[in-house]
Amino acid sequence: MKDIPYKIYLEENELPECWYDLRADMKNKPAPLLNSKTHEPMTREELSKVFCDELIEQELNETKAFIKIPKEIRDFYKMYRPSPLVRAYCLEEKLKTPAKIYYKFEGNNTSGSHKLNSAIAQAYYAKKQGLKGVTTETGAGQWGTALSMACSYFGLDCRVYMVKLSFEQKPFRREVMRTYGASVTPSPSPDTNVGRQILTAHPGTTGSLGCAISEAVEAATSMDGYRYVLGSTLNHVLLHQSIIGLETKAALDKYDVTPDVIIGCAGGGSNLGGLIAPFMREKIRGEKDYKIVAVEPASCPSLTRGKFAYDYCDTGMICPLAKMYTLGSNFIPSPNHAGGLRYHGMNPILSQLRADGLLEAVSVEQTSVFAAAEEFARVEGILPAPESSHAIRAAIDEAVKCRETGEEKTIVFGLTGTGYFDMFAYEKFHDGKMTDFIPTDAEIAEAQKLLPTV
Amino acid sequence: MKDIPYKIYLEENELPECWYDLRADMKNKPAPLLNSKTHEPMTREELSKVFCDELIEQELNETKAFIKIPKEIRDFYKMYRPSPLVRAYCLEEKLKTPAKIYYKFEGNNTSGSHKLNSAIAQAYYAKKQGLKGVTTETGAGQWGTALSMACSYFGLDCRVYMVKLSFEQKPFRREVMRTYGASVTPSPSPDTNVGRQILTAHPGTTGSLGCAISEAVEAATSMDGYRYVLGSTLNHVLLHQSIIGLETKAALDKYDVTPDVIIGCAGGGSNLGGLIAPFMREKIRGEKDYKIVAVEPASCPSLTRGKFAYDYCDTGMICPLAKMYTLGSNFIPSPNHAGGLRYHGMNPILSQLRADGLLEAVSVEQTSVFAAAEEFARVEGILPAPESSHAIRAAIDEAVKCRETGEEKTIVFGLTGTGYFDMFAYEKFHDGKMTDFIPTDAEIAEAQKLLPTV
Repeated sequence: MKDIPYKIYLEENELPECWYDLRADMKNKPAPLLNSKTHEPMTREELSKVFCDELIEQELNETKAFIKIPKEIRDFYKMYRPSPLVRAYCLEEKLKTPAKIYYKFEGNNTSGSHKLNSAIAQAYYAKKQGLKGVTTETGAGQWGTALSMACSYFGLDCRVYMVKLSFEQKPFRREVMRTYGASVTPSPSPDTNVGRQILTAHPGTTGSLGCAISEAVEAATSMDGYRYVLGSTLNHVLLHQSIIGLETKAALDKYDVTPDVIIGCAGGGSNLGGLIAPFMREKIRGEKDYKIVAVEPASCPSLTRGKFAYDYCDTGMICPLAKMYTLGSNFIPSPNHAGGLRYHGMNPILSQLRADGLLEAVSVEQTSVFAAAEEFARVEGILPAPESSHAIRAAIDEAVKCRETGEEKTIVFGLTGTGYFDMFAYEKFHDGKMTDFIPTDAEIAEAQKLLPTV
Repeated sequence: MKDIPYKIYLEENELPECWYDLRADMKNKPAPLLNSKTHEPMTREELSKVFCDELIEQELNETKAFIKIPKEIRDFYKMYRPSPLVRAYCLEEKLKTPAKIYYKFEGNNTSGSHKLNSAIAQAYYAKKQGLKGVTTETGAGQWGTALSMACSYFGLDCRVYMVKLSFEQKPFRREVMRTYGASVTPSPSPDTNVGRQILTAHPGTTGSLGCAISEAVEAATSMDGYRYVLGSTLNHVLLHQSIIGLETKAALDKYDVTPDVIIGCAGGGSNLGGLIAPFMREKIRGEKDYKIVAVEPASCPSLTRGKFAYDYCDTGMICPLAKMYTLGSNFIPSPNHAGGLRYHGMNPILSQLRADGLLEAVSVEQTSVFAAAEEFARVEGILPAPESSHAIRAAIDEAVKCRETGEEKTIVFGLTGTGYFDMFAYEKFHDGKMTDFIPTDAEIAEAQKLLPTV
């Protein structure tokens, strides 16, 4: 067996030429999006008022396994991809585990996360369609940053509605977006009907992601030449993120390494879906058997405690219905610093895989996640994002089990991003002021009362 | 000629095995450090009260060109090195220049800069000497972060005196250091004699780098098993940073590229000295002729407007005297966000090279630096640190000149770090509230009045 370096870098000419769409190989396809009023499958025409045409094609695709990555997008990818697959030698030594741990690191770009993989694709298709610009919402700010970078590259106008609380608490994120020429509006804002309504009804509110989505959609549909874009949850976003898994598999193949366990954190599901795509393909086709694990926060446990049913994708109930694991669209996660994982539902592909028993799921508590983050940072030299640290927690737990059983498992996890803009959360942890939140069964049942009957 | 990828990565086994000390090839050696009271050359014994033994040997070396990098340090380097040499295709296209631009990017590690290259070496030698810990000061926070990471890796205690103004304005930097287990004390503090004196004399002061140095030195010399370490300016720091230049040259050689111009920003000089080392070697030995340029802020122009003379290294005048280009040890740079470049003097090796006509120097103004930073970020996808952006400014200026003359020069510059913790400065720039400061000749002459007579 070849000596494995600390970091496995693919050559630029080994950058995948196609994205991979898992749906083509799934026996049970994910259920279609439904119009929230008629409960009929969403048509291209309905979707085209909100989304870019090519992205709709990708969203509705079920049969085409490999979709060519346009040259313009590959050129941009070359600025920060292929991303390294890192062998966590120092973590292994620290844990005294016989397990072999690898992580795919997506944080080495200015957006600080994997979000850029889809942002550049979405901006490209918007530009190709001749649009002037796009709108979106951002909570923690990673998606907004990624989209700003992508739009700046293609000369598109980018309007970001940022949850007012984040806008005020994360001025640095805001300034990064401004550096890339985006306009950043605190939400709710007086610029949209929905924003004005909310401001009148709740003066002094600090906003919510649901409200920011509604404002971004209204802005896109009321301006000529604009569409709305989204950073997770949707199937076409998973498609773009398959680049993560394809590179991971190519890097492992190069060294004849076959993983036993593949672990990713899951909020809307884009990173997880991307990371596992080519491995799940082999699993579905019966070529290999991998243990594939989604890790979610115990405070927002859609896959581990949610119901598999049609539900609204947004709290405002204006978006289509999706069949997914859901805690109920009016489930309000308790305050939780892993902003990117605070979503009541889960991408439909991943939900179907979970329902079919192909995907395992665990939930972990916040303080144990930050303990894992710190342990990892000290030996591996990378300060991880809170979201990514959910995967670190699960990977460490798995490696510690190997220490006890003596098994030499190969563990691969996704390190989606860096935590440079999350130091308030780290500060809370250092000061012993961080607590764990776990919703009760009654709270979840209450939030699921509004599930639509389909 | 081979196709040149966006990023040239060396393999891990191509990581340099030795650092290179430029002094071995210099015809005029830099003048020795002098005891600030006796004006006699500093002895090993005098230095050993403050610094680690092995680092003193490296500081005083003048003859050994190549110094083996210990395995433990190389293992750590492998976590983030070799760092990429990037071909700035997008910037070239944006500038419509026939010039070919490359940059060596040192920001892809959690400290966010090249400082980690020396921090890990200094921590290693401290550990090897059996010390319990080290003390240091930090202004902008990059050096403190790097040292915290390095000490955490080797299990050394790390005590950082952080200028109180930064401590309060940059809570995120502070939390990163705490994540790595360092103790961070706002300076001036009541923990040291010098801190107490300053607090009594100037109640409510927000501190200064000079004061933080004095506190860190006092703390190191008054505790058993501690030494003081420094992140720039000293010759042994340049030695460790030679890894930057050695990798750069190896990557260029791989593609048969010979640069015409090599550009680095200069504060204390560690990044510049490291980047240029192997190129300057060839220039001194008459094997190649490169244009080698130091870029400094117009607000703190030691190389372009300073005097080449013996001067104190610190405002407190407790450190040894060094022969260097200096604005005077009591020169107070006007408020300037490029924190790492606000030093009144310059490393003695670089000063001697400048005096010998081997090193050119230019100064650039802050607003034009931020304009270059933003232009670069938008096309190259990396948000640069303000310090690094001085080099970007000069590189862009050089490339624009090529557009005018039609020359196809090859330009290499050092991109020392990222600006994620500098968004206050970017905000000022975006809001049009940033101004330029240029000291008058009279102000510089006044500050140089206290130059010692040696």
